Amino acid sequence: MRTHSVEVIRIATKSPGDVSGLMQLVESGRLAPASILAVLGKTEGNGGVNDFTREYAVSALCHALAPHLGITPPAVEERIAFVMSGGTEGVLSPHLTVFARTSANDNGTVDGKRLSIGIAQTRDFLPEELGRSAQIDETVKAVHAAMLDAGIADPQDVHFVQIKCPLVTSERVEAALARGAKPVTASAYGSMGYSRGASALGVALALGEIKSASEEQVLKDWGLFSSVASTSAGIELMHNVVIVMGNSVSSASPYLIGHAVMRDAIDLAAVRAAFESAGLTDGAVQDKLVNVFAKAEASPDGAVRAFRHTMLEDSDIGSTRHARAAVGGLIAGVAGCGAVYVSGGAEHQGPAGGGPIAVIARA
Amino acid sequence: MRTHSVEVIRIATKSPGDVSGLMQLVESGRLAPASILAVLGKTEGNGGVNDFTREYAVSALCHALAPHLGITPPAVEERIAFVMSGGTEGVLSPHLTVFARTSANDNGTVDGKRLSIGIAQTRDFLPEELGRSAQIDETVKAVHAAMLDAGIADPQDVHFVQIKCPLVTSERVEAALARGAKPVTASAYGSMGYSRGASALGVALALGEIKSASEEQVLKDWGLFSSVASTSAGIELMHNVVIVMGNSVSSASPYLIGHAVMRDAIDLAAVRAAFESAGLTDGAVQDKLVNVFAKAEASPDGAVRAFRHTMLEDSDIGSTRHARAAVGGLIAGVAGCGAVYVSGGAEHQGPAGGGPIAVIARA
Amino acid sequence: MRTHSVEVIRIATKSPGDVSGLMQLVESGRLAPASILAVLGKTEGNGGVNDFTREYAVSALCHALAPHLGITPPAVEERIAFVMSGGTEGVLSPHLTVFARTSANDNGTVDGKRLSIGIAQTRDFLPEELGRSAQIDETVKAVHAAMLDAGIADPQDVHFVQIKCPLVTSERVEAALARGAKPVTASAYGSMGYSRGASALGVALALGEIKSASEEQVLKDWGLFSSVASTSAGIELMHNVVIVMGNSVSSASPYLIGHAVMRDAIDLAAVRAAFESAGLTDGAVQDKLVNVFAKAEASPDGAVRAFRHTMLEDSDIGSTRHARAAVGGLIAGVAGCGAVYVSGGAEHQGPAGGGPIAVIARA
Amino acid sequence: MRTHSVEVIRIATKSPGDVSGLMQLVESGRLAPASILAVLGKTEGNGGVNDFTREYAVSALCHALAPHLGITPPAVEERIAFVMSGGTEGVLSPHLTVFARTSANDNGTVDGKRLSIGIAQTRDFLPEELGRSAQIDETVKAVHAAMLDAGIADPQDVHFVQIKCPLVTSERVEAALARGAKPVTASAYGSMGYSRGASALGVALALGEIKSASEEQVLKDWGLFSSVASTSAGIELMHNVVIVMGNSVSSASPYLIGHAVMRDAIDLAAVRAAFESAGLTDGAVQDKLVNVFAKAEASPDGAVRAFRHTMLEDSDIGSTRHARAAVGGLIAGVAGCGAVYVSGGAEHQGPAGGGPIAVIARA
Repeated sequence: MRTHSVEVIRIATKSPGDVSGLMQLVESGRLAPASILAVLGKTEGNGGVNDFTREYAVSALCHALAPHLGITPPAVEERIAFVMSGGTEGVLSPHLTVFARTSANDNGTVDGKRLSIGIAQTRDFLPEELGRSAQIDETVKAVHAAMLDAGIADPQDVHFVQIKCPLVTSERVEAALARGAKPVTASAYGSMGYSRGASALGVALALGEIKSASEEQVLKDWGLFSSVASTSAGIELMHNVVIVMGNSVSSASPYLIGHAVMRDAIDLAAVRAAFESAGLTDGAVQDKLVNVFAKAEASPDGAVRAFRHTMLEDSDIGSTRHARAAVGGLIAGVAGCGAVYVSGGAEHQGPAGGGPIAVIARA
Repeated sequence: MRTHSVEVIRIATKSPGDVSGLMQLVESGRLAPASILAVLGKTEGNGGVNDFTREYAVSALCHALAPHLGITPPAVEERIAFVMSGGTEGVLSPHLTVFARTSANDNGTVDGKRLSIGIAQTRDFLPEELGRSAQIDETVKAVHAAMLDAGIADPQDVHFVQIKCPLVTSERVEAALARGAKPVTASAYGSMGYSRGASALGVALALGEIKSASEEQVLKDWGLFSSVASTSAGIELMHNVVIVMGNSVSSASPYLIGHAVMRDAIDLAAVRAAFESAGLTDGAVQDKLVNVFAKAEASPDGAVRAFRHTMLEDSDIGSTRHARAAVGGLIAGVAGCGAVYVSGGAEHQGPAGGGPIAVIARA
Repeated sequence: MRTHSVEVIRIATKSPGDVSGLMQLVESGRLAPASILAVLGKTEGNGGVNDFTREYAVSALCHALAPHLGITPPAVEERIAFVMSGGTEGVLSPHLTVFARTSANDNGTVDGKRLSIGIAQTRDFLPEELGRSAQIDETVKAVHAAMLDAGIADPQDVHFVQIKCPLVTSERVEAALARGAKPVTASAYGSMGYSRGASALGVALALGEIKSASEEQVLKDWGLFSSVASTSAGIELMHNVVIVMGNSVSSASPYLIGHAVMRDAIDLAAVRAAFESAGLTDGAVQDKLVNVFAKAEASPDGAVRAFRHTMLEDSDIGSTRHARAAVGGLIAGVAGCGAVYVSGGAEHQGPAGGGPIAVIARA
Repeated sequence: MRTHSVEVIRIATKSPGDVSGLMQLVESGRLAPASILAVLGKTEGNGGVNDFTREYAVSALCHALAPHLGITPPAVEERIAFVMSGGTEGVLSPHLTVFARTSANDNGTVDGKRLSIGIAQTRDFLPEELGRSAQIDETVKAVHAAMLDAGIADPQDVHFVQIKCPLVTSERVEAALARGAKPVTASAYGSMGYSRGASALGVALALGEIKSASEEQVLKDWGLFSSVASTSAGIELMHNVVIVMGNSVSSASPYLIGHAVMRDAIDLAAVRAAFESAGLTDGAVQDKLVNVFAKAEASPDGAVRAFRHTMLEDSDIGSTRHARAAVGGLIAGVAGCGAVYVSGGAEHQGPAGGGPIAVIARA
């Protein structure tokens, strides 16, 4: 019995503050604002600490949607899961992907499993819980809750888990220390990696990809990873927001999702496998592709298939910018289009130097 | 009757000044220094105006080879054609490709056309001739001379033409003005584009790729281009050095060369075609690939297949760095290796936003 | 007869979207929103083409002030002159300077000329008028109108003229060409310099600093410049907004303004002279300084007092970032504080390589 | 009894490989190559991990001087202390400062203490000794030896101590671990800070600036620092080279040296004090200044005199580049010239956010 449908719309943007494409869809009636569950975006900042294009984009979207939802801009930000990834290096093209969920009657015209999305969130964390067991364990529960929300029972049907997670700030660190608690790191930047890593391990545990993960292994044991987790840390929340994407018989969506794992940054075979897992062979890509979601990083051992790379020693360009540009070039070559979601920072998301890649396509 | 052979060796480097790999080959007797015709290298600078890794690498090579050749370092620089391309963004890996030519007796074991290389140079140019008809016309003659040197008669057998060309400096501009002559631009940086563009048009004319090219069309009419030219400007010379690479029955080389043209920066089909033109299908790449030579640039119209790119508006990272990273990622994906020669700045070298790509492989 | 007063408040910001400091002043009643004439800000972007912190800051301010002014955010942007300068390199510190004007009765306690501000604007320009005589001439008129608005009759009393001016976009260029008109350049980036330069020459003419300026001299004859002009181009308007700052007997403001001209980027004597012109000697700076407004640029001849600088050849960091960092370091040293307004791009604003510097201090 | 003299010559360079200025002095007989003790240079790289302009400059100098000294280039590098600091941001101008020492008979025309230089070196360190007590203790001894060499008995007469110190590499770390020893950090980049910091503490101890320093305080207790130490780490050596500069009655040099300590990056008063300590008042700077030597860094607490700076959060430009640009702008303003030696990375060299500044001037 199909109970709902999922719509996925990719919208090109002209700048981080450009909401015209989304508003056109809303004002024309093509997209009901109340149905929007999540927005994943690529913005043209540097993707680093001082990338303000992410919060600018979210601010613009909240101000634009607020009157249509009859709530304030801050309430929009609480209601919809916004995940903005900065950095459109090389051929990558700034865009938004809007995920909307509507109820649906099964009219019998849809067969097989279809794209389904579920959302859940953890309780708020204390600063000292980030990057540690509490964050791992609560993430496990939230992934299970989001799977339930998506109508997905089998972990094999989960193909992408996007998580927004918190980071520590100097104020939060001080508050923790005042209580006699010690956060895993006092550095805001450093805590982002811990939070992303612990969240990814939570996904891996929830889906049975690994048997166990202790907090000592976070950012240490790179053999532990999830093949479908994509996590990003943000200053605006103290809990994890979990978005599970997979295929389900309860969905009447016209779309499918599949995935693969790139073992390194030049793993063309894995990119092809991801496209094929969503039913896309060479000829069909242009007609049926909706979007690609991938994580990229500079291999921490300084080499790709034994050839030295220079991403980690470049004092002019951060390694995440290098990695997005290169992996973006490869994926865009297969996708035939640069408006793909390639995000940097892949701790415990795929093997070291590699990362997960998911593809959504018209069935 | 095969009269010579061409050896091509790719050597990974640990830094711009690292000559240890080359010296090991020389000292072990594997490579006769006197046979070295040309060295094409990728160095880990920014590829921009203040990239000193190129001249540092050439200086290190000249100092290292001089005692083996019994000449001074400056004489080495005149004898061997060094072409260093700065910028190993993303997965690109610093390396040298050494081209050596030896005489050979045809022992009958080789069949078909094989890799052959020829070199020629133009007369010295006056500063005001750069980017203008004189440079175009003299390049035509030099390409023909280099083809003759390579034993290649049919333009169809030419697959890559690497040119080093001059640029103007403020001193050269002043000298010209004092004679009442006016260079095409007074900007050193700007003159590099003109010199590269005119040289590429000379290649296109020499090979019959275009029927005519006037100096008014340089950097204006992007419909005119060569599919095999790769040109780079350097301050150290006032003439063009032309290196023609192709296949010839006069060569007993164990290698073949082929090429294709990328119509844009994500033209995966063209990359594959280039590999296939050198006899490489998917399975054979790892065993037989020697190296790839390609030019990359940010599409000047600001879009790749109708999707906006941000390379030209990024005030933090130059567009050539973006382009090399993205195209390098794509080519490395097919090559299975980041030690490929991807160079930026492709005026009249392939269509706007695209560029030529040549592949050398073991036959 | 003193008819009005001018308040100037410098507010530190925590990020480009931080309006908390300004809102605190508004909500505490210390600052009447309706009295705000202009806001000049330094934001922590790169100051280049892809610096979105400027528009983000303006957007945040408009959204925050709109309910207090009872108008829409776009109406706030039309009512208040927002000038955001991106780039807080080195010790420069992000902040806003709010200028407010209130009517005042002369209670006789104020003597001498005091800080006064006037605003005016030109008619809308056609794209082909930018950088040309029309823009110069209309700017002259607007400067005179703004002086009148400020109650300043003598050009000697004008110490800083901030201008916001338009630029061309590809759409605007196409529209012009369709009418048979040809803009001075088709490049958006290039048109910014032309628009800034023509506007600065308009200031110089209006104040009698130069006798004449033809459109052929824009960006050519660097001997023509204004010692008090500070111009910046923005995409959001098609006319010039002119803010004149000077001293006037009609103002009861507690502040004074003075200025000097830096002849190059290391002109410490000029910085000191500017402080002294506002009544600030070494001992008084800390107590009385309100803010400093200066323009900086890399000397176009590649040298500062005969010593080569490398700002123009650095392909990793734009020359405007270098210049702001260096001049900001010098001015902050004298000011004892990094929250000073140092802006890049000084065409016809001060001599080549130098720039105007104005100081506002408590009388 | 004056036994020797010290010559100091500042030479502008046209590029990192430019040795023409130095060679002109050598070939004209103005400078005896055998008298050269040390060369401190500013090169136009990024000053970061991938700044190859430093080793390129040293390589060029060694190749140029070798025939004049009758030794090989590597032997030149062992004989002369080369300290290259990358990064000429803002108005900083690339140059070399050559220090030469000759014997001299006291002809009675010189009075007072004059510039003297002494050099010494420690034993080689094991990788695990870097950043620890052994490095601190051995540096103390070497500073004392260099003072003796310089003929300086009173620590008050020491005004600048330049140190070159080692760093760990992955090979060195592995070798240490194989012996059961654990280096203070496994990161090459990280070890540079430890090595610089321990070396600076050694200077502070040797000169009695602090009473004690344990290895636990390295990079932790920022209250411990030297006011005259300037240390830089390089991969090419395993011992510390110590260059002590001060004033001595045994020197007949025409120069004097003085110093001060900048307490933060905008400490103009300290810059002036340093100039005055070398006998330079405003009027005399242009005639008598030889060069300035200073260290700069971004204040680790994120603020300069309570105003937030953005140097540590800029993912596009490294904080050392920001700091050099700003401090260089300030010092150049006082010096009237950008060819000053401002170097980044000031662990335990001056207070946090500040740094030592020494001035050499004609007596």
